Amino acid sequence: MKKLIQEKTHFLQDMLDGLKITHPELEIIADTVVVRQSKKQSGVALVSGGGSGHEPAHAGFVAEGMLDAAVCGEVFTSPTPDKVLEAIKAVDNGDGVLLIIKNYAGDVMNFEMAQEMAEMEGIQVEKVIVKDDIAIENVEQRRGVAGTIWVHKYAGYLADNGTSLKEIKEKVEAFLTGVRSIGMAITPPAVPTTGQYGFDIEDTEMEIGIGIHGEKGIERTAVEPIQSIATRLINQLETEVDATELIVMINGMGGTPLSELNIVTKYVAAVLEDKGKTVKRWFIGDYMTSLDMQGFSLTFAPYDKAIVEALNAPTTSHYFNN
Amino acid sequence: MKKLIQEKTHFLQDMLDGLKITHPELEIIADTVVVRQSKKQSGVALVSGGGSGHEPAHAGFVAEGMLDAAVCGEVFTSPTPDKVLEAIKAVDNGDGVLLIIKNYAGDVMNFEMAQEMAEMEGIQVEKVIVKDDIAIENVEQRRGVAGTIWVHKYAGYLADNGTSLKEIKEKVEAFLTGVRSIGMAITPPAVPTTGQYGFDIEDTEMEIGIGIHGEKGIERTAVEPIQSIATRLINQLETEVDATELIVMINGMGGTPLSELNIVTKYVAAVLEDKGKTVKRWFIGDYMTSLDMQGFSLTFAPYDKAIVEALNAPTTSHYFNN
Repeated sequence: MKKLIQEKTHFLQDMLDGLKITHPELEIIADTVVVRQSKKQSGVALVSGGGSGHEPAHAGFVAEGMLDAAVCGEVFTSPTPDKVLEAIKAVDNGDGVLLIIKNYAGDVMNFEMAQEMAEMEGIQVEKVIVKDDIAIENVEQRRGVAGTIWVHKYAGYLADNGTSLKEIKEKVEAFLTGVRSIGMAITPPAVPTTGQYGFDIEDTEMEIGIGIHGEKGIERTAVEPIQSIATRLINQLETEVDATELIVMINGMGGTPLSELNIVTKYVAAVLEDKGKTVKRWFIGDYMTSLDMQGFSLTFAPYDKAIVEALNAPTTSHYFNN
Repeated sequence: MKKLIQEKTHFLQDMLDGLKITHPELEIIADTVVVRQSKKQSGVALVSGGGSGHEPAHAGFVAEGMLDAAVCGEVFTSPTPDKVLEAIKAVDNGDGVLLIIKNYAGDVMNFEMAQEMAEMEGIQVEKVIVKDDIAIENVEQRRGVAGTIWVHKYAGYLADNGTSLKEIKEKVEAFLTGVRSIGMAITPPAVPTTGQYGFDIEDTEMEIGIGIHGEKGIERTAVEPIQSIATRLINQLETEVDATELIVMINGMGGTPLSELNIVTKYVAAVLEDKGKTVKRWFIGDYMTSLDMQGFSLTFAPYDKAIVEALNAPTTSHYFNN
């Protein structure tokens, strides 16, 4: 396995040091917590994070109009509760803190422990848990994937508009009832810290329903033309997102070139049009990746004017509007 | 070889169709020429392009503050003169057209033929040829690579400020005397149209001095830690860019994850600091790629206040400021 790294044990720290060099507006505290240099003086503060390997998520979304802090764990590994607590304490300005958590056992446990500790210190904390990945049948066990990025933006918009902590939590949870994702890949991620590939796969095969930590999919077949792949994914999403007007994200997995994401877009659009669906807002790019995996995920939400206004509002993140 | 495509013969057309879906501000004319929907009414118009496979270059830089047209050839193949002519005719508003050409025999020949044809139709046309890749010793044979993106931006800024065609050509050529690049890769590009990899390479090796069309490098060695790689590239660039204050681009090759580009940044910065160099402006991201190749190129220009002002000026391209 080949990687452009110095030492596998320094992956996280080196990556954050590099990010900081080109993002002077960010600050790194407690070694692995990325916050804005100029702390927000009022309004609910947003904290997200999780294991690394999903760049630009989450540190790339620490920006005006989006997150106040990203707590970065080692590759595909939850950050510890003390780091989450540091983040909460750093960003709280008295208006409370919302934790945006992807639904993985370690993340949920560690963010919840931090929440308890912060509450004992008198900080108001609420949480939302993102479970958008329909590859998992059991709704409560669904993983949080690319839909999380829309939550960063929507909640950031609400916070900037003076919405209360309780109300942001309610609005985000209402939004999440409609957000669904599914991913596919033709290559596994190459995990620098372990020197292992997420899964083995032949040069003629693809995986449908992969996770973002090297989890295999729920179905393996021969690689198909992109229109067939798009049809498969859309057919599955359609059973859960019952709307004719959609917000759609095509999320690159880290190693997928932009040329192919554009080709995917054409065929996703064509399949949706055939089904009589209209896409009111597209998001195309690398938002929630899995190291250098080649593949993409598709995320749908029912169109809602207020949501699109929030998603379209300005942010200083370089990584949101692709 | 696996690709997220429909049919290899439709790669270019499908990619442009997909781009258009998410970029309603663009228009595709003559099948493969990308122009702005609202044509610039005055000021020098900028036309670039070349073979495809380098996305977001060049179509992603057709935007306010940058290009007026990108002429897109098939993968790694020059566009034909008639398409370049169509582009010139579509964007000229009477103030003249500047062709920004990467130094490849086919591109130079076809853009120059189009220039002649346009001049016969009474359109004022000038050209600049980018030759920034120091992997080639002979200066006249040097390939145009990532430095081309800065030219798109600098020339776009000058055009928007009413600079004349002759003066833009002079200023860009003066700027280009200082722009130098060199690239490296750990994997070759997988070329969809031919079904071939750009070169064969072992899982323990890297190539220094690669091109962006699957051209092998000038040296093959075992993969080294990124600090050694950065030192190699910087030592080579240093022999040609004699400045203590620099503008630096770290350009991803299409399949390199952002995490690794950030790690590269840390070590490039460290090596430069050791050498007493200061970076006044960084550019990190995928600008001039080679399909899904994993690797990066490094581009240096001597710091110049006016150039940085031009590079920092607003553009509506989503792909320029990463």
